[in-house]
Amino acid sequence: MRLATVTTPSGTIFGAVTDRGVIDLHARLGARHPDLRSLLAEDLPVVPDGAPVDYGFAEIGWLPVVPNPTKIVCVGLNYRDHRAETGNRPTRHPALFLRTPDSQVGHEQPLVQPRESATLDYEAEIAVVIGRGGRRIPRERAWHHVAGISCYNDGSVREFQRHTAQYTAGKKFPGTGGFGPWLTTMDELAPRLTLSCRVNGATVQSADTDGMIFPIDEIVEYASTVFTLEPGDVLVTGTPGGVGSRREPPVFLAPGDVVEVEIGGVGVLRNPVVNDQGCRG
Amino acid sequence: MRLATVTTPSGTIFGAVTDRGVIDLHARLGARHPDLRSLLAEDLPVVPDGAPVDYGFAEIGWLPVVPNPTKIVCVGLNYRDHRAETGNRPTRHPALFLRTPDSQVGHEQPLVQPRESATLDYEAEIAVVIGRGGRRIPRERAWHHVAGISCYNDGSVREFQRHTAQYTAGKKFPGTGGFGPWLTTMDELAPRLTLSCRVNGATVQSADTDGMIFPIDEIVEYASTVFTLEPGDVLVTGTPGGVGSRREPPVFLAPGDVVEVEIGGVGVLRNPVVNDQGCRG
Repeated sequence: MRLATVTTPSGTIFGAVTDRGVIDLHARLGARHPDLRSLLAEDLPVVPDGAPVDYGFAEIGWLPVVPNPTKIVCVGLNYRDHRAETGNRPTRHPALFLRTPDSQVGHEQPLVQPRESATLDYEAEIAVVIGRGGRRIPRERAWHHVAGISCYNDGSVREFQRHTAQYTAGKKFPGTGGFGPWLTTMDELAPRLTLSCRVNGATVQSADTDGMIFPIDEIVEYASTVFTLEPGDVLVTGTPGGVGSRREPPVFLAPGDVVEVEIGGVGVLRNPVVNDQGCRG
Repeated sequence: MRLATVTTPSGTIFGAVTDRGVIDLHARLGARHPDLRSLLAEDLPVVPDGAPVDYGFAEIGWLPVVPNPTKIVCVGLNYRDHRAETGNRPTRHPALFLRTPDSQVGHEQPLVQPRESATLDYEAEIAVVIGRGGRRIPRERAWHHVAGISCYNDGSVREFQRHTAQYTAGKKFPGTGGFGPWLTTMDELAPRLTLSCRVNGATVQSADTDGMIFPIDEIVEYASTVFTLEPGDVLVTGTPGGVGSRREPPVFLAPGDVVEVEIGGVGVLRNPVVNDQGCRG
């Protein structure tokens, strides 16, 4: 099943995405579940094959899959080839940092190049959306706490990221992170996921989860030691090699560019880039 | 005026703190303002001198001043003497990182030494609570966006903080940050604030805002470039020299210890330390 949060002519809803449109689960379950985050805390509903959709794709706008997570935990330097291109030495534990919900946009919404810097860069990542929450989740139980997988673009303003050793300043600008279009539940996915990024159609990152230094179950274990994980929390599990800022010469995103993040079996997150005034060029 | 969020026999409220107890502003204003964060977005109400209190101190429990901020932005290495004791070189911009609301406790609530590490350390800090929100706030307008000042203990699990270059893992354990007892509005404060920390009555940190590398107005300017600041957001502005982990030999907090953070003109935040089972020894 694919689950998403979308705007409709009747307001913001969450629902199941089929090939024909969106089945409104909020209308059916809203009394118990005000939002997708709440739904993810429990056993997911069964949507019958061929159930009629409530909204066609032309009627909806995509929001971040979970628009209001209590936290978005990102992992830095988690693919061998990306760690190599940055020149960073290995660490024995994942490097965690946080994004904020208001730094995110949904599928097809524009990413914003801030007026302060022309160093906006893409980072294709696999987002793990937590279902049942927990603390101190052992690796072998990790997948029981995962609701599904979504595409993420951990867009980064490199100049600000490098102001100090803490990444935070470069990872929080409003409208710089893409999250969508939906989460795909684990029953529909292979254990090994492929991940790629395209800018204006040209592939710039291509990897699979075998390239990860800390696999997803280990990230769940470590993050849940430090944090209590809540339903709808998002673990953004790192980007592979090929980021723009490490190219020779460096390449950054500019208004008019289109970035796509694809995870095999999940889908494609697509975002155009605009400037601070909302213009594409 | 001093504003706080507290538990009472009638539930969680926010109110004005006087020498005799708490005046329940939630009961008076709750229709418009569900919580203190909402109240801070507007002109604060005038509470007449000598107004009767609704709850005596024996009836209340202290919660984090703002229990549900959209973000808690911390500044690392922001006092000259602390930067010196850590051996870090100067940077041209503040080093920002984030805490999460569930890592915080209120005044008199216990700080929790996690079972994973005996390296819990204190960090006395000045918390700046945002009133009116904004983006790209220039320094000269910064104080118009500040509702008040509160004491903060940016408690840190040093072993996890040092797992990687990102501080995040050491700053998020549940129950490791103290925030309270209240915020004091700016009209009651001197421009230069004193800050100190005591462990079991012995002073371990003592400084004033002249020791800051990036003053508060500059932090507001920088943070509001990166983030949109919202009412009730918290800027935790750095700790002075004297942290336990940089002592020779290092000293860490242990169950049974009592930590106090004092800001002149604001008050004293006091927290006992317990172990993971809630015991003081």
